[in-house]
Amino acid sequence: MSTNAVGFENLFRFTQLCLERVGLSPANASDVALALATTDAMGVFTHGTKLLAGYLRKLQGGGYVAGAEPRIEREGPAWAIVNAHSALGQVGCLSAMRIGMQKARQVGIAYVGLRNAGHIGAAGYYAALAARDGMIAMITGNDIPSVAAPGSRTAVLGSNPLAYAIPVADGDPILLDIATAAVAGGKVYAALQRGESIPNTWLIGPDGLPTTDGSLYPQQAALAPMAGHKGYGFGLWCEILSAILPGGNMTWQVGSWIFDEPGRPSWHNASITVIDVAAIAPPHEFQPRLRRLIDEIHAAPTAQGVERVLLPGEREWANYRRALDQGIHLPTDVLDKLRQAAEQTGVSLGELEIPKSVVAETETSG
Amino acid sequence: MSTNAVGFENLFRFTQLCLERVGLSPANASDVALALATTDAMGVFTHGTKLLAGYLRKLQGGGYVAGAEPRIEREGPAWAIVNAHSALGQVGCLSAMRIGMQKARQVGIAYVGLRNAGHIGAAGYYAALAARDGMIAMITGNDIPSVAAPGSRTAVLGSNPLAYAIPVADGDPILLDIATAAVAGGKVYAALQRGESIPNTWLIGPDGLPTTDGSLYPQQAALAPMAGHKGYGFGLWCEILSAILPGGNMTWQVGSWIFDEPGRPSWHNASITVIDVAAIAPPHEFQPRLRRLIDEIHAAPTAQGVERVLLPGEREWANYRRALDQGIHLPTDVLDKLRQAAEQTGVSLGELEIPKSVVAETETSG
Repeated sequence: MSTNAVGFENLFRFTQLCLERVGLSPANASDVALALATTDAMGVFTHGTKLLAGYLRKLQGGGYVAGAEPRIEREGPAWAIVNAHSALGQVGCLSAMRIGMQKARQVGIAYVGLRNAGHIGAAGYYAALAARDGMIAMITGNDIPSVAAPGSRTAVLGSNPLAYAIPVADGDPILLDIATAAVAGGKVYAALQRGESIPNTWLIGPDGLPTTDGSLYPQQAALAPMAGHKGYGFGLWCEILSAILPGGNMTWQVGSWIFDEPGRPSWHNASITVIDVAAIAPPHEFQPRLRRLIDEIHAAPTAQGVERVLLPGEREWANYRRALDQGIHLPTDVLDKLRQAAEQTGVSLGELEIPKSVVAETETSG
Repeated sequence: MSTNAVGFENLFRFTQLCLERVGLSPANASDVALALATTDAMGVFTHGTKLLAGYLRKLQGGGYVAGAEPRIEREGPAWAIVNAHSALGQVGCLSAMRIGMQKARQVGIAYVGLRNAGHIGAAGYYAALAARDGMIAMITGNDIPSVAAPGSRTAVLGSNPLAYAIPVADGDPILLDIATAAVAGGKVYAALQRGESIPNTWLIGPDGLPTTDGSLYPQQAALAPMAGHKGYGFGLWCEILSAILPGGNMTWQVGSWIFDEPGRPSWHNASITVIDVAAIAPPHEFQPRLRRLIDEIHAAPTAQGVERVLLPGEREWANYRRALDQGIHLPTDVLDKLRQAAEQTGVSLGELEIPKSVVAETETSG
């Protein structure tokens, strides 16, 4: 393991202990900790253990319910509606994913709508899990609005997440995990902190026109949708599959899980659609075809300085492999949040406690 | 009907007659003609009857097979793989859609992969049809590569179409129908004809970097993917659902239906995923929730000069209603193609024959 790095196992165990301390079952605590630590390992630090402190706050405040178990409300041969009863979004999504996979194995494809969950973290995590079990998976989620529609002066939809994953034999899944905003709100804050103006493609100002003034966000500006009407359309797709069809809270009815008081649920929703590849195409047919596509893309001539064209998720899986081997260089904002989680729960940071001087060094090299 | 406009019914009948003349069954000719004329009526002239002459050429040359009937190759309770046997893409997609809807009515959701079809035209047309029957539908297609991937110097994937539609009670479906390129190739040609340079977000030049020289396309430049890695990811999603899973031709194996010799099939592929809303959520629950979302979006404060925020497809349906009432102002390139179709088949243009002077006037006012 490289110096200054946090071991994956340590990060996982710390997270698991914190979640158990506030009442999650060992199984659920393990599931959620694995989701968050894996997301960090993939280098997606905005959706990894940085979320833990906020989740703990909600769990301690009662807005998220540590002992809640998602339940099927209605179901058919190829679908189910699952009520998470304010369980963590990870607990809800994993439950929905397992239900969906079981049904897809029977009939080939399944849709599961998940309502009344907590914030779901990285949507792609669940898609990747399903892909490792031989499924093609598409995940959608909804969130409180932060993204304008073409022509609007205010936010209309959340920066709704959309992810898919494709199973690859002897390899990591193809994995796309995106938000339907042009850019994450966190990038606006980061530019602001650095005193930089932002490109005019990121924000829609209070007059409904693009603005380069990041300080307007989020009170007086909304994120632009990715690719204009296309991203708006995909955001709406997420809203309908995640909230309207399952009967969950939509748009402004979704809570702000960070800013609301801790006793308030956040009423996030998601959908999971899985296709069992083996039910439809024998693996000895599907995988060689997919391999040919992958090889063709990898062999595409590249622009100067580009080693090779990557598949969606390929960079993140390389991060992940390296992290398992060498540890994870967590950014300081994540470390700060982990310290906060330790304070909230009394769980010792143990080997996650890194001297400030080392943290600064890590930050520079990161 | 306004002057210089072509009546919807006339356009439909002319198209139908041409298709019957080259051997399509009356039912299939009617289906395809309705798809093309409706697409024109919606104002999507790139994918309407402009395609007819090219389809006729393929049908007369044998690359597309007028008498072919799509057949289910394999199926399960919630899925099917359909071989179109070089039928027109419209015939293939409509067949796949009907099969998918029948299965979704039984089990709630269904996936149908369609292989060996002709060019499928406007993917959203099939989604809208399903939505008018109470289904949520997602359509994907693949095509011969014209779009670069992030970091590539050449085209890697087709500008693969992706569409969805949502049923709206007492209204037209919500309908998104997009290509996964940043812009359609036709826009590059149009800018070139006007002698204009193009934005640097449209094309990737032979060095793998953005270019504003439209004359490089398509031989030495590829279209940029919409929203960079996101559009690339969606393009790959289309390729996998449409071609890899059903076992159809992928990427460069797909024919260029316009430039290839007419005896060559084009081996296009598509996928259709439909969810029967009534199976999952009773209409008296789903539709009020959807209505609330629609009303909320329509009530969003707008930028100056914007009357209201539109739903995906709303503008196209307004075009459609107006076209049924007042006729369609076809652009000259479409009229040229219709004249070509008349020559190919000997079918009289009839009331579609518009004097050149009027055509020029139409073009100016369009």
